[in-house]
Amino acid sequence: MAGAGALIQIGVVGCADIARKVSRAITLSPNATISAVASRSYDKAASFAADNSFPPTAKVYGSYEALLDDPDVDAVYMPLPTSLHLKWALLAATKKKHLLLEKPVALDVGEFDEIAEACEYNGLQFMDNTMWVHHPRTTAITHFLTDPHRFGLLKSVNSCFTFAADADYLKNNIRVKPNLDSLGSLGDVGWYCITASLLTANYELPKTVIASPEPVLNQDGVILECGASLYWEDGKVATFRCSFLANLTMDITAIGTKGNLHVHDFGIPFHEKEASFSAGTQTSFNDLATGWSSQPTKHTVKTHLPQEARLVTEFARLVGEIKYKNSKPEKKWPIISRKTQLVLDAVKTSIQRGCEPVQIQESGVKEFVAV
Amino acid sequence: MAGAGALIQIGVVGCADIARKVSRAITLSPNATISAVASRSYDKAASFAADNSFPPTAKVYGSYEALLDDPDVDAVYMPLPTSLHLKWALLAATKKKHLLLEKPVALDVGEFDEIAEACEYNGLQFMDNTMWVHHPRTTAITHFLTDPHRFGLLKSVNSCFTFAADADYLKNNIRVKPNLDSLGSLGDVGWYCITASLLTANYELPKTVIASPEPVLNQDGVILECGASLYWEDGKVATFRCSFLANLTMDITAIGTKGNLHVHDFGIPFHEKEASFSAGTQTSFNDLATGWSSQPTKHTVKTHLPQEARLVTEFARLVGEIKYKNSKPEKKWPIISRKTQLVLDAVKTSIQRGCEPVQIQESGVKEFVAV
Repeated sequence: MAGAGALIQIGVVGCADIARKVSRAITLSPNATISAVASRSYDKAASFAADNSFPPTAKVYGSYEALLDDPDVDAVYMPLPTSLHLKWALLAATKKKHLLLEKPVALDVGEFDEIAEACEYNGLQFMDNTMWVHHPRTTAITHFLTDPHRFGLLKSVNSCFTFAADADYLKNNIRVKPNLDSLGSLGDVGWYCITASLLTANYELPKTVIASPEPVLNQDGVILECGASLYWEDGKVATFRCSFLANLTMDITAIGTKGNLHVHDFGIPFHEKEASFSAGTQTSFNDLATGWSSQPTKHTVKTHLPQEARLVTEFARLVGEIKYKNSKPEKKWPIISRKTQLVLDAVKTSIQRGCEPVQIQESGVKEFVAV
Repeated sequence: MAGAGALIQIGVVGCADIARKVSRAITLSPNATISAVASRSYDKAASFAADNSFPPTAKVYGSYEALLDDPDVDAVYMPLPTSLHLKWALLAATKKKHLLLEKPVALDVGEFDEIAEACEYNGLQFMDNTMWVHHPRTTAITHFLTDPHRFGLLKSVNSCFTFAADADYLKNNIRVKPNLDSLGSLGDVGWYCITASLLTANYELPKTVIASPEPVLNQDGVILECGASLYWEDGKVATFRCSFLANLTMDITAIGTKGNLHVHDFGIPFHEKEASFSAGTQTSFNDLATGWSSQPTKHTVKTHLPQEARLVTEFARLVGEIKYKNSKPEKKWPIISRKTQLVLDAVKTSIQRGCEPVQIQESGVKEFVAV
């Protein structure tokens, strides 16, 4: 099991529900395999491995430390609550494990930088687990949005990611607990809206962020529902809304000077093997304005591998480049993650300040380490 | 030509481009006919009548006053620039003409009330020319939005109406001239976004309106592009964006506790004889969240008459009820128009105050006349 063709050995650190989906994705990926799983309880880890068809070679650990000490593990996928990311991500970096970290990456950009710098210092690939950007549909969308003839310049983008959490979720889920995932819906589903806003703006950071009035917090101060507007220097604007309290909806609507884009399932496509978007260019009414002479058209993109497996494949590819070819880690991924975290922080700060505008400082635009 | 079956005789006051569409709509309506047309120039009115296949019986006038003095005219359609509405609508009311008035109705709610009160005082039907609410698709949408099982309670709605005006429009159109249509894109396309926001909220007025930062004004102070957020007492929120500077886009995205709605051509349907919307109820992911187990579905509503002809038919029906059956004017339409104008005023005021929040006063909720 050595050489450029060998599978990247991934350890799963934590048995959260999302780890079921990602474990399947690792199994589906042609260049990765699950080599270990850890929980704070050995039994829980063993059950998880059995329930999720882990390969018989996968080792089971009753502690995260034990897995991180396993020399056969190249990289870890870490679906722990956000408040635990700093501790365990730093330890993973110390143990030279490449890191696929669940989003939101950190409680704030200060923590983010500690994690990303530890990965950088140790020559490790960092990637957050935002799956949708790895779908070939997203590539097609990006081509459309960056085409001066088909889309022109971005003017505005609205996105949303909401779902209706049930009573049990709103009482017991880690995402409503201030000591676990204190960023609540902003960190969970708002993260996607921010990635959508940034991707649509070609990853240019906004200048100003303003949270919408009257966010909904639970009794412990965790955000259950909020919105925000992002403003760029050139006048373009992004608005988004994220919520645990409204029916499942997951949209991007982007309007450019020459085109428009609609996506209704951007974070998780309706179907696993194909996904669609609607694109319009120089849409127009007919002469009497009794209908449209040019309207948006639907584009469908097929994918053999689901987006989460494409993410794992890309992560494992980069890990393999480092492991077998002595390459440097790909900085694109931590840079995108950091920008997302910066905007998320600004929204949170705006909420804390009564929805005052928050400036994103120019220094925030810089990469977190000198190249 | 008397009795309940007679056609309502409509005079067209002004030969704006939109009058071509509405003249066709009058012709298509089974209970109305064009009996006269007026322009400040006789030749222009005569050409307009010839170019738009007016019935040979239609009279041609070289002044608005002359048409308003014609005793055969029951009602007028008035597509004049907004700054002229007050003068001509009041004169029409004095002359006992029922009034179909182009939107935006007035420069502000003070003017609106003068017009609506003049109609009320003279027992005349008032209706503004917002066509889309007369489409049977809008009725189907309303049924969906008010269904506690399919949609639940409204949480948020985003709408937009943008189009890319060309250089000539941005220089010469009445909608960029401070002395003609000084409300610019807010009055023109923003009006529709406000109607969409109010319809979605079952015509409950919001409590607070906040314009988005950095609206785009031309050198004469006319709004070319702006956005706003509307906040209701119960926490629901509407956001919208209107623009003359972005590709033609016309959306409603409404999210309720149990459902969601998407419309991509709400103001003017893609096709004249049928229109669609997408409705989701308790949409959900599959177990592994690798796809959706329940997704929105498309609904298509056919209509024999285009929406603008349905509007005229409804207007003429109400006029006929008054003329032949001594009914009272239907108050629903001026009430909806007034609420739209109130919100529009609040957005404009917020823009003028540097995007400060503007409260919509409780008194504004009252009907403009005692019943």
